[in-house]
Parts: sequence; C-alpha cells; structure tokens
Amino acid sequence: MTATLWINARVVTCDGDVERAPLPAALEVETENGRITAVGAGLPRRGQQEVDCGGRLMTPAPIDCHTHLVFGGDRANEFEMRLDGATYEEISRAGGGIRASMHAVREMGVEELVQASLPRLDHVLAEGVSTIEIKSGYGLSVPAELNMLRAARRLAELRPVRIRTTWLAAHSLPPEYAGRAPDYISEVAIAGLNAAHAEGLVDAVDGFCEGIAFSTRELEPLYLRARELDLPVKIHSEQLSHAGGTAFAARHGALSADHLEHATGADARALAAAGTVAVLLPGAFYMLRETVCPPVSAFRAAGVPMALATDCNPGTSPLSSILLTMNMGAVLFGLTVPECLAAVTSHAAHALGLQDEIGRIAPGLSADFALWDVETPAQLVARIGFNPLHARIFHGEMV
Amino acid sequence: MTATLWINARVVTCDGDVERAPLPAALEVETENGRITAVGAGLPRRGQQEVDCGGRLMTPAPIDCHTHLVFGGDRANEFEMRLDGATYEEISRAGGGIRASMHAVREMGVEELVQASLPRLDHVLAEGVSTIEIKSGYGLSVPAELNMLRAARRLAELRPVRIRTTWLAAHSLPPEYAGRAPDYISEVAIAGLNAAHAEGLVDAVDGFCEGIAFSTRELEPLYLRARELDLPVKIHSEQLSHAGGTAFAARHGALSADHLEHATGADARALAAAGTVAVLLPGAFYMLRETVCPPVSAFRAAGVPMALATDCNPGTSPLSSILLTMNMGAVLFGLTVPECLAAVTSHAAHALGLQDEIGRIAPGLSADFALWDVETPAQLVARIGFNPLHARIFHGEMV
Ligand SMILES: [Zn+2]
Ligand SMILES: [Zn+2]
Repeated sequence: MTATLWINARVVTCDGDVERAPLPAALEVETENGRITAVGAGLPRRGQQEVDCGGRLMTPAPIDCHTHLVFGGDRANEFEMRLDGATYEEISRAGGGIRASMHAVREMGVEELVQASLPRLDHVLAEGVSTIEIKSGYGLSVPAELNMLRAARRLAELRPVRIRTTWLAAHSLPPEYAGRAPDYISEVAIAGLNAAHAEGLVDAVDGFCEGIAFSTRELEPLYLRARELDLPVKIHSEQLSHAGGTAFAARHGALSADHLEHATGADARALAAAGTVAVLLPGAFYMLRETVCPPVSAFRAAGVPMALATDCNPGTSPLSSILLTMNMGAVLFGLTVPECLAAVTSHAAHALGLQDEIGRIAPGLSADFALWDVETPAQLVARIGFNPLHARIFHGEMV
Repeated sequence: MTATLWINARVVTCDGDVERAPLPAALEVETENGRITAVGAGLPRRGQQEVDCGGRLMTPAPIDCHTHLVFGGDRANEFEMRLDGATYEEISRAGGGIRASMHAVREMGVEELVQASLPRLDHVLAEGVSTIEIKSGYGLSVPAELNMLRAARRLAELRPVRIRTTWLAAHSLPPEYAGRAPDYISEVAIAGLNAAHAEGLVDAVDGFCEGIAFSTRELEPLYLRARELDLPVKIHSEQLSHAGGTAFAARHGALSADHLEHATGADARALAAAGTVAVLLPGAFYMLRETVCPPVSAFRAAGVPMALATDCNPGTSPLSSILLTMNMGAVLFGLTVPECLAAVTSHAAHALGLQDEIGRIAPGLSADFALWDVETPAQLVARIGFNPLHARIFHGEMV
C-alpha cells in the first residue's frame, strides 16, 4: 500500500500537555496501512500519494467515550409529561424511565436494535467521530443485555467506525428483582458477564452507583469478577448525590469515573492516584437542569484528565452531537478550549484504555483524524449546534 | 398550475389555541399556486397531483423571527478569552464585543457579507425554516447598516426563503459617538432609517434598550420616526436588567419585545394589552449562563403569545438551529411541547406581523411546511441537536 502525505493542513496533534495545547501548526502527516508514520514540517518526499487539505484544521478524530446509543423506542413522551408538570414518580408509575427502555429492548431482536440505532450512529459519525463506546444496560436480563452488545458489535461491521462495548447490566434493578439487588448482581450482572465475555462481547464493565441504583457494596462482587476476567472497569458515580462510587472505582483501578457532579476534592485525588479519567457528561446535566457542576478546578489541581462524552441515551441525554457536547463542556462546566479538545481526543482515548492507539496525531497511532472548515479550535467549540466537518479519516481512509 | 394534494401525513396545523395544540391528525392538505387551498380529511379529488408524505409529521415551516445572521468574522477568540478567565471589560478593551463585529462589517462590501452569511442561512434552511428575520446592527454607520440590509435582501434572491429585514442601528454606540447617543440616534439611526426605507430595505425597526446600550428616552425619537413611516417596531428589552424597554415598546404598539429575562408581571400585562409578542431567546441565556428566566408563567397568565428564535449572532448566541432553540425553550424555560411548536410557527409569524400569511396550515396561507421523520411533536423537541427534517416545502414547492 502506498503511503499518503496529508499536506497543507493546520494540525492540532493533541499530543502533549493540555495547557500547552497549541494553536494549529503547519505540519504534514504521513500515513501508511492505516497508521500514522510521521508528523512534521517538510517531511521527506518518497513517492507518497498527496492529499491537499486546503489549509483546513486537522484534529484527531473525536471519540465519544460514553454512550447508551443502542436502545429501542424513545422517551419523548416522558419529556412532554415532565414539561406538563408530572413528577419523576408519576412518570415512573406510568411505566417511564429506564423501565420503559427495558420493555422496548426486551421485545427487540439484535437486528431490530441495529436498525433502531443506525440513524443515531450515522449522526455521530457525521461529526467526524471514529471511535464510540456503547453500553448495554436496558435489557436487564441476560439474553437482552447480550443482544444489546451483539447489536453494538454488529454496528461496527456496518459502518467504518471502531466500537468499544461495555457491560452495564448493573444499571437499574428490573421489577422481577425488586428488593433483591444481590441476587440480580449474581444472577444477571455476573452470570451475564461470564456469558458475554465468553462470546467476546465485552471490552469493559460498568455500574451505576447511586441511591436510585446500586451501592458500592452491591457492586463489589461484579467488579471483583471483572478483574478476575482481566476486564477494565468504569463507573457512573456522584451524578445526583455523593454515594462513594468514585473512590470505589479508583480502588478498582477504573479506566474512568463518569458524571461526577457531586465528586469531592478527595475523589479527585483518588482518581489522580489511580490514573482514572474523569468523564464529564454535560448533556445530562443540561437536560436535568442540574445546578451543581463537577469540580473542574479540583480535577485540574489534582491532575485528573477530563474527558467529555454525549452520554447519548433516550431519557436524560438524548444527545448524539460530540461538537455540542464540547460547547456544553465550555459553556456549562467552564472547560477551556484546549481542555474541550483534549476531552474528546487524547483523554477520551485514555478513558477507553486506547491511549496508545487513538486520540492523538502521532507516529504509530491509528490514522483517524478529522478535517474541519474552520481555522482555530475555538471555532469548533464556540458555535452551538453547528457541524463544520469537511472529511472524516478512519484508518487512513476518507470515509 | 395544477393543484397538489399532500396525502398520508400526520398534520399539526398550529391553527388554534396553543393549549389545545393537538396530536397530529390524519389530514390532507391541498395547495395551488403556492398557497394552501384546503385542509381536511378526505378532500375531494379533482385531478390534483398527489404527494404521498409516507405517514410523516407535517408542521408549518418553522420561522426564525429574531436573528443577526448577516455579519462578518466571528468572535470565537472572545469565547476562548472568556473561558481563559478574561472579564467582559478586558475583552472590550482588547477590541472585542459588538465593536469587533463593527470593524469586520465596515470593511466588507455587500457581496462579502452575503458570502459570509450564506453558510449560516443554509444551516437554518436545513432545518425546514422558510422565513427568517435578519437585523442590521453591526455597521453602526449609515453606509454599513445599509449594506447589511442589502445583503439580507440579496440572500432572499439566492435561496428559496422569505426574509424580513429589521433596521437595528440602535444596537450599540460606535466609538466616534461616545457620549453623544442623541446625536447617533439622529444622525445614524434616524437618518439611515430614512435612507434605508427609501431604498425599500426596511420591514421593521428595532432598538436595544439596556444600560449598556440605549435608554427609552434615547430611543423615543427613532420609534416616533418609525411610526411616521408606518413601519412596525420591535425591541431588545429586559435582557440583563430591567430598563423599561418592554413597557415602552408596548406603548408604541410593537410587534414584539425580545429577550425579557427581567420582565415583570406588569410588563406581561402591557404586552398583552398591546398585542405584542414575547420573543424568548434561550441561546443567549444559555451562552451567558444567565440564571433569571423570562417570566413564562406571567406571560401565560396574561395571555401573551410566546415565540422562540435563535438570536443567531457572533457573540452571545452563535446558534443557527431552530430545533435546538425549541429544545432549549423547553429545557431551560419550561415551555411545553405545544408552546414550543407555536413559538416557532404561529407566534413567530405574529412577531413579524405575518400571521395572515405564514405560520399555520390553514386555507389562504402560504404553502410553507415541513415534513419530519418523527411521529409526534414531542420527538421534534426532546432531542438535543438532531435534525429529522425529511423535506422543506416553500410556496408549495419541495426545495
Ligand atoms: Zn451513562
Ligand atoms: Zn438580538
């Protein structure tokens, strides 16, 4: 395969400290066999095919490192009920919330889940994303959870995209296990994990630690089992209250702790010590009209890498735009422009354990990048809901 | 010209009380010569051409009734400075704010303004919008303000869209008039209005009533002149503080008062009595991290029609998505789904004085509608930053 030289681009490599995250530089990028082979000014010509980037901004391809993109149905009716004044309890009694998604998913086969999810995936890809994490968590039974991850794997065959799957059976307690969380963890979350892992469906294991979901004590056996299987773990923690999931996840050496509105300075230091990424999800913060922001200053002070993701889901974050997520990270959480960019590239890669594979424009990494019709990173972040993507490059191919 | 029958659509007419704003009904719509000629179930067949809408949702075409879409440059650098901790005063001293846009616009000819604005207009149209209001207000000199409205008129020749122009010279005091607001109003805002009106460039007159802009006393001569010219007026009022612009506008029988975060119950009653529309602009509220919401309950109680618009501008609302604006109206301001829909259709038409021409699917009105790949209006509003437009119909033509 001939090497390719990407010339005449303004390149932001995201390879270096976030604070020094640079203005775009006039660099050339050489790729071969889907990987980046050289980055620099005036690279040697040795017969490579040349692609003129027209002076556009080049960044690593964005990574959406936290989504629930595979689901059935939608919950727009609940959105309407809330606006009409219904309480969460009333909506729940009317069969709403995660339970509504559970019923929809349980009635669908893999192919139906794939078809329902493809338009969302296409929207994600239209903003240049080349890697997306997708969680299970709406089936809440072994067969339905497995189907969700089978659908996620299938999506990666249908589109040029890297998909990382996460086992999130510990998302919510289904009605048949009411009052029996430990049984659910053992019979569904762990038993299903064993089956899913045997089928090659699991890249990571996740849980929802919250008063309305599971306690750290309930999650502990699941996380121990994940480590026995050598699977990395993640967590949904401190979203609505401080339930201790962040410190728990750090003790388990988690890849990431996600949401974190109610995390403390001690949590930040625990994440830093464990090398765990803080994944911030402003879409849910926005949708739920939360007022407590994640402790961004504490994360900065402790040196915790911050990622941003859409949290794409049918209820609390019906958002599939990584660009709007960056804008919300800046506007709602006060992240700087370089922080927002690192948050969807190098730090998002880190949150998936893929920091040596994607997220930076550096020799040896996968040739996944995006070309944008803007001049500066600030122009990517400042506009609300606008997509200036010119081209998406995945494994060295314009797709 | 043959009549067309639009069949197999789920139609929301937006023709009736907002509270009763209905679930979609299986109605047929007949159009001829760009106008709606009949709406009903089982309309008589008399050789019309038929268009099968495939069971999709049909609504009146959205209307964006408050934008500053024509401008030059952008202000992403200021956005970045703010995130890096700069104060508004520091940004202003560095040449930022409206003044930065002023310098950009004054250096551009009409054609340059058109080219800079077309991509934004195309983004607006991609969400089905068929009518957009565009204000002057960044030139702040007679020739530059005229150029902005010439550019706005020219845009309507380049794309199938209805554009309404608004004279907003009273937006900010340019440096050469520092301390001489009355002179600016007389020599630029009024003198320029006379010239622009003579050239047929003005559909309405607007002003920015705020501590950092103009007082009602300063605006009074401009509004009196507008009325002498039989031009309807609008106002930017009570955005950052209560400066009295809303009551002032009501006294002048304004089409709309816009922003209104700090409006009072008395303001709401004044608007209702004057038949003035409240135009809410959640994009600016979001971008500025405001915490005081417009008094939606007071508007409901007084019976003030509420519209929503993007406020598309380079600084405080770099937003060109009417769908995201509806979502923000619901999430940030608590508007119900029917209110959001009326806010970008019938009420937005009212805010432009075009209630007998557009904004509803009813006989006699322009055949401007949108077909959406969703089933319910709630699905249009609930998702954050997603565009399910299937087709845009302008004057009876799919465009
Ligand atoms: Zn989540
Ligand atoms: Zn405005």
